[in-house]
Amino acid sequence: MAGTDSSIKIELLPSPVVILCEPQLGENIGTAARAMANFGLRDLRLVRPRDGWPNEKAIAAASKADHVINHVQVFETLEEAIRDLTLVYATTARLRGMQKDVIGPDEAGKRMADHIGSGQKAGLLFGREKWGLLNEEIALADMIVTLPVEPAFASLNIAQAVLILAYEWRRQSGQANTLPFGSLLHEVAPRSELVGLFEQLEATLDESGFFTSPEKRPGVIDNLRTALTRGSFSSQEVRTLRGVISSIDRCHQYPNPKRVRPAP
Amino acid sequence: MAGTDSSIKIELLPSPVVILCEPQLGENIGTAARAMANFGLRDLRLVRPRDGWPNEKAIAAASKADHVINHVQVFETLEEAIRDLTLVYATTARLRGMQKDVIGPDEAGKRMADHIGSGQKAGLLFGREKWGLLNEEIALADMIVTLPVEPAFASLNIAQAVLILAYEWRRQSGQANTLPFGSLLHEVAPRSELVGLFEQLEATLDESGFFTSPEKRPGVIDNLRTALTRGSFSSQEVRTLRGVISSIDRCHQYPNPKRVRPAP
Repeated sequence: MAGTDSSIKIELLPSPVVILCEPQLGENIGTAARAMANFGLRDLRLVRPRDGWPNEKAIAAASKADHVINHVQVFETLEEAIRDLTLVYATTARLRGMQKDVIGPDEAGKRMADHIGSGQKAGLLFGREKWGLLNEEIALADMIVTLPVEPAFASLNIAQAVLILAYEWRRQSGQANTLPFGSLLHEVAPRSELVGLFEQLEATLDESGFFTSPEKRPGVIDNLRTALTRGSFSSQEVRTLRGVISSIDRCHQYPNPKRVRPAP
Repeated sequence: MAGTDSSIKIELLPSPVVILCEPQLGENIGTAARAMANFGLRDLRLVRPRDGWPNEKAIAAASKADHVINHVQVFETLEEAIRDLTLVYATTARLRGMQKDVIGPDEAGKRMADHIGSGQKAGLLFGREKWGLLNEEIALADMIVTLPVEPAFASLNIAQAVLILAYEWRRQSGQANTLPFGSLLHEVAPRSELVGLFEQLEATLDESGFFTSPEKRPGVIDNLRTALTRGSFSSQEVRTLRGVISSIDRCHQYPNPKRVRPAP
């Protein structure tokens, strides 16, 4: 979905911190940064990235999420990386047998939004590509977050897991729950204009012999009017449709018009 | 998030169709297929894929989402690709100035869930990597869906846009709104066991000279009991904590214990 508007300044509002534990591939760090930027997150922290930092592949994969990738912080231990946080969720796709509550991304988004809204800091832990988070890392978190995936195909790329959590945080946080643009719907034409359209159409249909029996005419008209009302046409659209009818009407010559009088 | 369990059979329940219009890169087709599979979607249709079909890069990028990638259908026109659908949403990140309603992914997920739940077929259109959907393609859709992104960084990879919509459909559809695993929380210990822990702890603290003044003792105890109650310990955890206290107590010799009597 191409659509970045570089004329708009990025708002740096408080948002969840993302912590990647021992990420292996630079591409995944970059795509995670991009996913964060899409939903307004910006604080990315890495614990012992395998290939060190900075990482050219990460920067390339971030697709210009510079405000995230240029401010990455690197830590030797997870404890240091989460030192300033007061709410920490561990993401995992596997049942761990740990005595921790398990919640979904919607609940996590809501709780993080509440927490951050009250002026505190929250963070999300993501594990290694191959085997996720270690139990000792999960033990440092308040709760486990898992995604409502198809159990038989539950493996998500890190950036995709980051994306869902970032999306849910943004959706649930009052500060950013609006769409970037809204409906541009016209005003609906006053009913009198719609009735004008109906009458023109029905007169034309009377001329053209459309109604084969006077008994059925009222029911057919009801159905036509019902269908045409459903479109909520604008005044301009009513005018266009009236032009369409006139235009077709002018082109036709009715060699053998079956005139049908309206039923009383 | 590693976690696919290949012993579980994939459920093929009715789900939204995904239609990619003129996708350029095979990798994006593959990662879109994987994102679909994560949330239980399976019907992927391509309109004029640039590099033809089948595409080795797509198959590699699908990470074994074989039940999706092996059943891809390819069409010459979008009209053919959506011929059997009765609800079609167009995804776009840009304001189009078209007279169509614009909704977010949560609303789209809900409407698709309702529609599919009533036995009908729904589909989601995604555009080209570089410039999205054409206006003539959007004109074939019922509504526009856009994501609540940060407007200054709104560009999502196709697979990521597919992922969010697939997630929202699954979240909102009654058939699959559960997490793959739940909390494994123990039963909380009966309050008598907790009180036993408190009494042991407080007796030990009395012995050790922890309470420096008798007046403050009740308030300190209230605070300690409050903090320890919050953990909702299991019977096993209470036993472990009592062992911890005993163990520390045995190790210490209190050379100069300041005995403090409980306040009356």
